[in-house]
Amino acid sequence: MPSAAGRGQGPERDRRPESGEQPAADDYAKERYGVSSMIQSQEKPDRVLVRIKDLTEEKADEVVWVRGRIHTSRAKGKQCFLVLRQQQFNIQALVAVGQHASKQMVKFAANINKESIVDVEGVVRKAHQKIGGCTQQDVELHVQKIYVISLAEPRLPLQLDDAVRPEVEGEEDGRATVNQDTRLDNRVIDLRTSTSQAVFCLQSGICQLFRETLIRKGFVEIQTPKIISAASEGGANVFTVSYFKSSAYLAQSPQLYKQMCICADFEKVFCVGPVFRAEDSNTHRHLTEFVGLDIEMAFNYHYHEVVDEIADTMVQIFKGLQERFQTEIQTVNKQFPCEPFKFLEPTLRLEYREGVAMLREAGVEMGDEDDLSTPNEKLLGRLVKEKYDTDFYILDKYPLAVRPFYTMPDPVNPKNSNSYDMFMRGEEILSGAQRIHDPQLLTERAQHHGIDLEKIKAYIDSFRFGAPPHAGGGIGLERVTMLYLGLHNVRQTSMFPRDPKRLTP
Amino acid sequence: MPSAAGRGQGPERDRRPESGEQPAADDYAKERYGVSSMIQSQEKPDRVLVRIKDLTEEKADEVVWVRGRIHTSRAKGKQCFLVLRQQQFNIQALVAVGQHASKQMVKFAANINKESIVDVEGVVRKAHQKIGGCTQQDVELHVQKIYVISLAEPRLPLQLDDAVRPEVEGEEDGRATVNQDTRLDNRVIDLRTSTSQAVFCLQSGICQLFRETLIRKGFVEIQTPKIISAASEGGANVFTVSYFKSSAYLAQSPQLYKQMCICADFEKVFCVGPVFRAEDSNTHRHLTEFVGLDIEMAFNYHYHEVVDEIADTMVQIFKGLQERFQTEIQTVNKQFPCEPFKFLEPTLRLEYREGVAMLREAGVEMGDEDDLSTPNEKLLGRLVKEKYDTDFYILDKYPLAVRPFYTMPDPVNPKNSNSYDMFMRGEEILSGAQRIHDPQLLTERAQHHGIDLEKIKAYIDSFRFGAPPHAGGGIGLERVTMLYLGLHNVRQTSMFPRDPKRLTP
Repeated sequence: MPSAAGRGQGPERDRRPESGEQPAADDYAKERYGVSSMIQSQEKPDRVLVRIKDLTEEKADEVVWVRGRIHTSRAKGKQCFLVLRQQQFNIQALVAVGQHASKQMVKFAANINKESIVDVEGVVRKAHQKIGGCTQQDVELHVQKIYVISLAEPRLPLQLDDAVRPEVEGEEDGRATVNQDTRLDNRVIDLRTSTSQAVFCLQSGICQLFRETLIRKGFVEIQTPKIISAASEGGANVFTVSYFKSSAYLAQSPQLYKQMCICADFEKVFCVGPVFRAEDSNTHRHLTEFVGLDIEMAFNYHYHEVVDEIADTMVQIFKGLQERFQTEIQTVNKQFPCEPFKFLEPTLRLEYREGVAMLREAGVEMGDEDDLSTPNEKLLGRLVKEKYDTDFYILDKYPLAVRPFYTMPDPVNPKNSNSYDMFMRGEEILSGAQRIHDPQLLTERAQHHGIDLEKIKAYIDSFRFGAPPHAGGGIGLERVTMLYLGLHNVRQTSMFPRDPKRLTP
Repeated sequence: MPSAAGRGQGPERDRRPESGEQPAADDYAKERYGVSSMIQSQEKPDRVLVRIKDLTEEKADEVVWVRGRIHTSRAKGKQCFLVLRQQQFNIQALVAVGQHASKQMVKFAANINKESIVDVEGVVRKAHQKIGGCTQQDVELHVQKIYVISLAEPRLPLQLDDAVRPEVEGEEDGRATVNQDTRLDNRVIDLRTSTSQAVFCLQSGICQLFRETLIRKGFVEIQTPKIISAASEGGANVFTVSYFKSSAYLAQSPQLYKQMCICADFEKVFCVGPVFRAEDSNTHRHLTEFVGLDIEMAFNYHYHEVVDEIADTMVQIFKGLQERFQTEIQTVNKQFPCEPFKFLEPTLRLEYREGVAMLREAGVEMGDEDDLSTPNEKLLGRLVKEKYDTDFYILDKYPLAVRPFYTMPDPVNPKNSNSYDMFMRGEEILSGAQRIHDPQLLTERAQHHGIDLEKIKAYIDSFRFGAPPHAGGGIGLERVTMLYLGLHNVRQTSMFPRDPKRLTP
């Protein structure tokens, strides 16, 4: 038994739940509950706190200490049923009048505000029947001691149970769901739901798999500056920063820096970092600040060498998520049901003209060199899914006219370009291209686009001292997370989203 | 043999090195050299390009294709000696008049501008004697074909050989070295040196080891916003951003967001991202934008649980660098000689008062609650190295007075705090603390510091719904790289450094 070392004793019991009473003199359990004083690193007890997810039948009849939040609490005569929560896991805990608990102790436990953090000592008992609503269905905890570690305020701005309720269910039986602004305004609480926990653990996994794969492929991670002196693409949609006595901009993409690294012989580089877009777009898939997973790579003879590497990286991410994050996927599916994500190996690559042909066959009218509208993009995604049974594909050889000036023209058909987008469930997640590495052609193309050469002089000059042919692309992390999980708003996959109307928390 | 498929033929030979002549009609080698047309992904030849680092004696007498830069070039009668470079590796290549090369071809090769990228076909031959100055000392390449892939301009803004010369050597024999501004102004070339290649490969390794270790320890990676609505610590040293019709700030640290994640039950989080400081400091170790490796972690009873995890993470980084990046360390040492980095396991932890006592013993006059000046910090580093033989240590229990308002006071001595710095070679690389997780105490401490409570309301409110005790810290990536390698300026370890006077490239 670990020493209680003052826990729940004397000065450590100075603050109580609002409805708490002083323990009565005749309370035989008075040392077994209370509010601990603030943990200020007073001591290093050798008490072991067991993880809730590890409380299984194998631990039956053991006495354990657990730290968790009061998820729910229900008093019933001489008993109080608590659900203790730890991240995505929870267990039922019973405080019942008896040898260890007095009626005052049961009342104390019943009155602890939801979301408070408590330390509980209890015996693990096999449950007589499966406990519905808990992740630990086969055992419950018979509480012998309970101390409040951090007390939550009594009124929560949102209820966690409401926040994980599928919208359909709420609509059907009139129970509450939580709207997005309430969630985002109270993100600290909203992020505690099993769904949020799962979404962001999976997002962490995407970053990890992205980097793991690229490092295995011999890529080097680079760090590119976010404060830049000149707006990279002409100055539209760029945030201005006051920089000492002058001003500067926030980078809309790390592209110039990735390309400089290629010209500096790093050969294969990637970076993960914020990207800023001052676009006044209030859609389900635009943010003013998002996380870019960026790749740039020198190739030998054909940009498909790069396309293949990027596509394979995405495939490795999809596979890794399937293998390592099955629990998280299922947790999210409970609230947001969705078909499993399908992909092919190798990845399906269609040419733009083939996509246009499929759309025309489905009745869409569009020109060979028109860009894809968002509805057509989605429609094409459905057509591709029907025909090829994949949620992930590449559209290659976009018309030159719809791509930026630095895009390499197709050597065969000058109306096309060596550029590509990648799609998940019919929405774009990556845009990329072979870049022009020849300063003369780059100058011509910039002039053709009416770009002020003075403003991009540094960019063009980067290619004057020998530049290998190269290609790359940028992936939006929040979009990948959203589309992989079949969610419907990128704000669900950004911890603290930024859009034209939201800058807090 | 791969098909030459037009390489060096017809229209593909349209641009020539400046001094190039049209091949004479009597040139028997005329198909064996030239300037390739720009690689526009015209074809997918099955030619295999061999890596220079793989050209060893085992490949002797094989015919190989190599792509590399012309590092140096020296014509000598009917021969031309080239050094071909690929990242940190290089090999001598010989073009000599004979069966494969005509005198025109030797002249063509000798006239290719340095730093141009070429494709070379050659026979690997055992060298008669070690080839000094090349990484591949035992073999050379006898060139049979040579085509220019990307031509560099004839005049380089800096010479790579000058850029890797140790300063001492340059001073001694009057040979040129390259000053920092020239390097940074021409970063694309400066980054090609073996030293730069090694520095940034090692930096990529630090990030990788940091994350690898933390993920193994159960941490979750988070992404925190960089555009924020309120300046986190009172508004000094913060960059302002115009945000649509309003204004915002650039985050000086992800701390508030890390702490919110802890309050949202993520328990152990880390993030890697840019941190912005509008400080007008022009020192060897300050940047206005740097990369923060940030950690935050809930603990059970004592913040030393967190200190131990952070220190062990640093130790894992040091060990991993030793094991995996020995070549890079040695490459950097050639230009910047330095003692190997020493550390203890477990990490040495001294209390602040012990550090002060050591300084006083060495003749420094300072009060118990004075902060460490930079010279004293360095002196202490030397004293600790002498006494304990370690370049890495922790200074714990800083005076409360010199730490931010959110720092948890020491429960025993109210003049001290539960805070710590970590040092490498006598310079601070991490600052951290147990944070106050109690809204009432946090309010009191903010008032004590004269901070406007309205401005930090959202911060304090984050702790109102149950907050676990937690601690963390932030590490400066560029400083860790600099100090591990014994370099002297943080601009050497930032690819594109930002300071009050530099915003480009």
